[in-house]
Amino acid sequence: MRQRNVKNQDEIVRESDRYFDDLEYIKGKIKSGKYDKICLEIGIGKGQFISEMARQSTNDLFIGIELSKAVVSLACKKIKRFEEENGIILNNLYVTALNALELEKVFDLHTVDVIYLNFSDPWPKKKHEKRRLTADTFLEIYEKLLKEDGNIQLKTDNRKLFEYSVMNFNKNKLNIENLSLDLHGDIANGIIFENQNIETEYEQKFKEKGPIYKMVVNFRRD
Amino acid sequence: MRQRNVKNQDEIVRESDRYFDDLEYIKGKIKSGKYDKICLEIGIGKGQFISEMARQSTNDLFIGIELSKAVVSLACKKIKRFEEENGIILNNLYVTALNALELEKVFDLHTVDVIYLNFSDPWPKKKHEKRRLTADTFLEIYEKLLKEDGNIQLKTDNRKLFEYSVMNFNKNKLNIENLSLDLHGDIANGIIFENQNIETEYEQKFKEKGPIYKMVVNFRRD
Repeated sequence: MRQRNVKNQDEIVRESDRYFDDLEYIKGKIKSGKYDKICLEIGIGKGQFISEMARQSTNDLFIGIELSKAVVSLACKKIKRFEEENGIILNNLYVTALNALELEKVFDLHTVDVIYLNFSDPWPKKKHEKRRLTADTFLEIYEKLLKEDGNIQLKTDNRKLFEYSVMNFNKNKLNIENLSLDLHGDIANGIIFENQNIETEYEQKFKEKGPIYKMVVNFRRD
Repeated sequence: MRQRNVKNQDEIVRESDRYFDDLEYIKGKIKSGKYDKICLEIGIGKGQFISEMARQSTNDLFIGIELSKAVVSLACKKIKRFEEENGIILNNLYVTALNALELEKVFDLHTVDVIYLNFSDPWPKKKHEKRRLTADTFLEIYEKLLKEDGNIQLKTDNRKLFEYSVMNFNKNKLNIENLSLDLHGDIANGIIFENQNIETEYEQKFKEKGPIYKMVVNFRRD
């Protein structure tokens, strides 16, 4: 999501226990061996999805990034409220403002179990294709990040982004593990895609307006 | 499409100039070198699509197959009417009753330019997966039939068949050349998929009820 500056954004993130800018600290967490899975969300928006994931899967570590510090500051506020409302501390969740192109600063080679791409910016113009989070440059990074049995889980309501992503995953020889062209239709029909579907803020708002597309892909070679 | 026996079906196909059962005759046509492209539709239904294609592309040869002779006899009648109404003879179109598993009886290795799969039976039950026209057994046959630069063009309104086909093409390492999750939406928005869209009888009826999915795939290796 795009967002202008938020008042006191620097102060908000500095005061948040869920915000990190010390890469060594977070790398230590990842390497600690304390967690079953290392999960990364690229583009956390206001953080509803990753907060709920972290609440449900306390044995996994969740790292969320977002390009804009203004948006991350909103997420920090929302996570704090979520913690207070639920009487919990999400000490398995850390967020930061980072460009996805710089993810290798945080993660060593093949250390991530799941990458979540939720309702990413579709960048509809052909000249902006390279900015889509499923473009070649990003796929190269994801392949370095992911463990051998890791995968990418993508959700979007943007048809053109989804069509592009199917074709680009296929072109880059990723395996499509699972695919739904109407995730909520499938859920309503009792077709379980995998686990439970955790909705993002955006998804809650837009799921009535058209289908939500979902795909799970991996880099496994034969 | 499914259809019980049609009265006089044997007589109808025998009298049709567009029906063939002499494989050597049709093989001669294919090998004649008279045609720019050799096009195959698997599952012609009542033949509207292939008739219109043959009318528009007089330099190409169109071969249409359908499992049931009853259905082929209906197609023969409809093609005859189409010829009369348009004052033409579609002498670049031949249809027959054939199981797609037997296509190699008609086509030598790598002789087909395009295979059309239009609104194929979805066979929704898992136990019938092998009968879907995009299942492994059929893909092996299509690969033998198609020229190196040939492709498969699939249209369907059945979401589950389309999802399965995307995943199975990907699993079998086919290249997805193009894909639309709303062909008629794209056409309405001036996004030209390729050439003009020729509608089938079924498509005309069902295009208002939900999206028509389309995909073009090929077997080209890097």
